[in-house]
Amino acid sequence: MNAELLRRTFEVLAVCFAALSGIVDARRKNTDLVGAFVVGLLTAFGGGTLRDVLLERRPLFWVERSEYPLVVLALAVLYYYAPKALRPLRERPIQRLAEGLDAVALGLFGALGTQVAIDFAVPPFVAVLFGVMTGTFGGVLRDVVINEVPMLFRPVGHLYATAAFLGGLVHIGALHFGASVSTASGLSAATTIFVRLVSLRFDVKLPPASPVDE
Amino acid sequence: MNAELLRRTFEVLAVCFAALSGIVDARRKNTDLVGAFVVGLLTAFGGGTLRDVLLERRPLFWVERSEYPLVVLALAVLYYYAPKALRPLRERPIQRLAEGLDAVALGLFGALGTQVAIDFAVPPFVAVLFGVMTGTFGGVLRDVVINEVPMLFRPVGHLYATAAFLGGLVHIGALHFGASVSTASGLSAATTIFVRLVSLRFDVKLPPASPVDE
Amino acid sequence: MNAELLRRTFEVLAVCFAALSGIVDARRKNTDLVGAFVVGLLTAFGGGTLRDVLLERRPLFWVERSEYPLVVLALAVLYYYAPKALRPLRERPIQRLAEGLDAVALGLFGALGTQVAIDFAVPPFVAVLFGVMTGTFGGVLRDVVINEVPMLFRPVGHLYATAAFLGGLVHIGALHFGASVSTASGLSAATTIFVRLVSLRFDVKLPPASPVDE
Repeated sequence: MNAELLRRTFEVLAVCFAALSGIVDARRKNTDLVGAFVVGLLTAFGGGTLRDVLLERRPLFWVERSEYPLVVLALAVLYYYAPKALRPLRERPIQRLAEGLDAVALGLFGALGTQVAIDFAVPPFVAVLFGVMTGTFGGVLRDVVINEVPMLFRPVGHLYATAAFLGGLVHIGALHFGASVSTASGLSAATTIFVRLVSLRFDVKLPPASPVDE
Repeated sequence: MNAELLRRTFEVLAVCFAALSGIVDARRKNTDLVGAFVVGLLTAFGGGTLRDVLLERRPLFWVERSEYPLVVLALAVLYYYAPKALRPLRERPIQRLAEGLDAVALGLFGALGTQVAIDFAVPPFVAVLFGVMTGTFGGVLRDVVINEVPMLFRPVGHLYATAAFLGGLVHIGALHFGASVSTASGLSAATTIFVRLVSLRFDVKLPPASPVDE
Repeated sequence: MNAELLRRTFEVLAVCFAALSGIVDARRKNTDLVGAFVVGLLTAFGGGTLRDVLLERRPLFWVERSEYPLVVLALAVLYYYAPKALRPLRERPIQRLAEGLDAVALGLFGALGTQVAIDFAVPPFVAVLFGVMTGTFGGVLRDVVINEVPMLFRPVGHLYATAAFLGGLVHIGALHFGASVSTASGLSAATTIFVRLVSLRFDVKLPPASPVDE
């Protein structure tokens, strides 16, 4: 598959899933429409913007593709005032919905972040961190502004940064063994989403720290 | 009126109002002088700095005009240790005072943000978002560090981002119909401040989201 | 002493102390290993990254020296899963340990921040603010993500930003009177750490604000 087309597809999907995860959470907190629009923007653009600022990559992806903010606005209006739109989203428990949307955005943005960092000649291990950052930062902003402890930092939490981290390792591993950018990105996103969902579903966590007084 | 002079006037006023809103809030929370100085800096420079970083605009306005941080320091010292200074500020209820200062800063920084983005050839709708960002981000930082839910994200809150958003639409509308930069900026700031104050005074809010189970 | 060597030494020590302060706090909050790694990264790289972004200084110090993130990872793994490693850290009360680590990082990062800003021709008073920012921002991020009120903004708190501020004034004062960069940086860091520790030990604080109703 054409690498640029895949990248664009990942980006559009990640923006929509992330924005919806923010809008759903904002509504749960009784924020008004414009507040939800802003939460959607932060969730959808936070990670990629941090990545682009740190790499001095311009124009920012949502300035270059100025239809993205309009898509976020449209999603917020539909979710707030068009009760029959986005029906599939309304038919499942809100908690699971928010986690599912977030997991997909985590995987897609993670793969995009790692790949952009590699394109900017960042060393491999740091590129993995760029993936983690790009994948998680939007969700961290969302959780901070709606006043929840970010998923990333919840006590004894499910795998979150870990999922993005594993996806990033798969990403650079695949490139190292000669995979194309498209293949590496696809494997990376799939790994992250899979690990995240398995962790949520089967309660998989990292082992606790060894006791302080041994 | 000379556009550059108007811009500078807006900037000085916005810095003072924003800084005071931060200092007043910090004192209410019993922060010490230097803490209040830092809250004042964050509130006064947060929005413009975010805008400048995203647009790669340098030098930052408070590095170029290095008297601005000194003004913020002077305001903090006066408000903390000179009981007779800034008397007009002390004579009204603290809640209303903080909201009024914040509203003026929101309008002025919003107009500055939208106009700078337009000067940097950002598409119109995104320029409006830059205005919202520049207007609100300082206040969001202030509220986060003093541990309040940001005004922008309060449940069923008064119009806040919405006010800046409407101001931005007026701004690009006025430019579109041939108004000068000064006129557009003035209308933009006036609209935002007016909408914000009317919303606070008469309890105007956006309609709630339509119910999930219809 | 060679200025570049001193700078590098300061940087390595500051990264280690800051990372440990984040990792210790994350463990106290029962975050898992990868969460603690991320908290360590934020604490160690937050201040310097903000400085570098605001000054458009690239590459970022932790991208250029990509062993730094690996050091943070190693510290997190040791502290979490190697009960006998880092023993000196485990033998003292956790609160005092976290404050001590944080104080050293504050002083070292503060001196680095002030000096880099001066190298970038930032005016002196603003350079002091860059020092405060570089010294404190990592700790603010740490406290925000583990859901504590940042030390910087605690009510009637011990000297924190104030300590970094005094260190910065000593820094530019020393340079003004002809001291070398190494001497100024050393005095700056020593002042900040000394003021911070004395404030904690002997409960030194700034005088409270004068009463509102006099």
